[in-house]
Amino acid sequence: MKYRVVLVEPKYEGNVGSVARAMKNFGFTDLVLINPPELGDLSKAMASHATDILDNCKIARSWEEATATSDLIVGATGIAGTTNDEHVRMPFYTPAELKEKLNKRGGVISLVFGREDIGLSNEELKKCDMIVNIPTSEEYPVMNLSHAAAVILYELSDAPRGKIKLAKHDDIERLYEHWRSVLEQINYPKHKRDKTLLMLRRILGRAMLTGREVQTLRGILRKTEWRIRK
Amino acid sequence: MKYRVVLVEPKYEGNVGSVARAMKNFGFTDLVLINPPELGDLSKAMASHATDILDNCKIARSWEEATATSDLIVGATGIAGTTNDEHVRMPFYTPAELKEKLNKRGGVISLVFGREDIGLSNEELKKCDMIVNIPTSEEYPVMNLSHAAAVILYELSDAPRGKIKLAKHDDIERLYEHWRSVLEQINYPKHKRDKTLLMLRRILGRAMLTGREVQTLRGILRKTEWRIRK
Repeated sequence: MKYRVVLVEPKYEGNVGSVARAMKNFGFTDLVLINPPELGDLSKAMASHATDILDNCKIARSWEEATATSDLIVGATGIAGTTNDEHVRMPFYTPAELKEKLNKRGGVISLVFGREDIGLSNEELKKCDMIVNIPTSEEYPVMNLSHAAAVILYELSDAPRGKIKLAKHDDIERLYEHWRSVLEQINYPKHKRDKTLLMLRRILGRAMLTGREVQTLRGILRKTEWRIRK
Repeated sequence: MKYRVVLVEPKYEGNVGSVARAMKNFGFTDLVLINPPELGDLSKAMASHATDILDNCKIARSWEEATATSDLIVGATGIAGTTNDEHVRMPFYTPAELKEKLNKRGGVISLVFGREDIGLSNEELKKCDMIVNIPTSEEYPVMNLSHAAAVILYELSDAPRGKIKLAKHDDIERLYEHWRSVLEQINYPKHKRDKTLLMLRRILGRAMLTGREVQTLRGILRKTEWRIRK
């Protein structure tokens, strides 16, 4: 699966640069511009370390030229259809739903974004195979072009999702045993111990401890025990 | 639960305006700025229809003043910790994980974003209760400030997720029965009918039809039948 970002008649070069930056942030490289403005210093400034994407972008004179080798065209619209009768804009997908739908698909997928002011025309939306719409507040649904691109590329990105390495279950259990032993040593009321240990379990369960954190907590308990014995 | 967006020493007024726009797009209103630049025409232009958020923003002289009434402080960093030993930046959450963690929580939550160039300092990160990091490409992990805000606010937003109203199961079944009947009428090879109907079921199942689409497809079948009978 290969993504291509297509901007239809962007007006402001700064937005083109901002989109290039968001693309590089999320690991995308192919940018196609239909009738763009001249790309000068501002586009480079906004692209920051993504000027290579600007340098390598393709300029197309028409929708057909821009999407020529696409297997699937996804159009982004800020105005979602409200009834199932509006085939132009319905059904539409949220970025998360789009990711799910495109999962495991092969081929070239064009993600098409419209003009800053009027977006994609109905004629252009009709040429799209799928429509994506970012859920926004009803009060102000029109997003900045590069923000919309950033949100959609964020969802579609394959950037490794940082996984927090949690402590091993056994280590956490040993922490609770250790804590029970400390409660005994500090003469914590016997009839309250189980309840208090359960509360500790609930608190630390919510906190989702890392292995390192478990070891540090046990270190505190050990130091406590040593101090008691002295 | 109430969110507050805190920008620590933003350098460019345009970014402040862009963040305000993203806030309004996703239904957030409270903006606090620590030592901001002067907010002039550019910030208003970038805020577009969200100038009310700029007009109502609070200016704070220090971190403590900005986060004074917060129950929880979440710091955004573009540089995630890589080992569990780095307590300053670990453990960190992705925006989606953050949403899950904050789900059902009450109180005031400050979402703190750092400077455009150096982000939040280690001292500032230490004052945060939780750290959020957007998964990005290793090649270029540093996002534009307002893009980072847009992505995180997108995840935390309560904007109603557009749900596609799918066709009722019974209506879809009637569509397949109708299709079977048409296959008979067009003398489609008998031994292939089941297999072809299953293929149709798979294709249309993937397409997740709306009720309206099912009715239109049945209309096509009806017209086909009428034409055959004539």
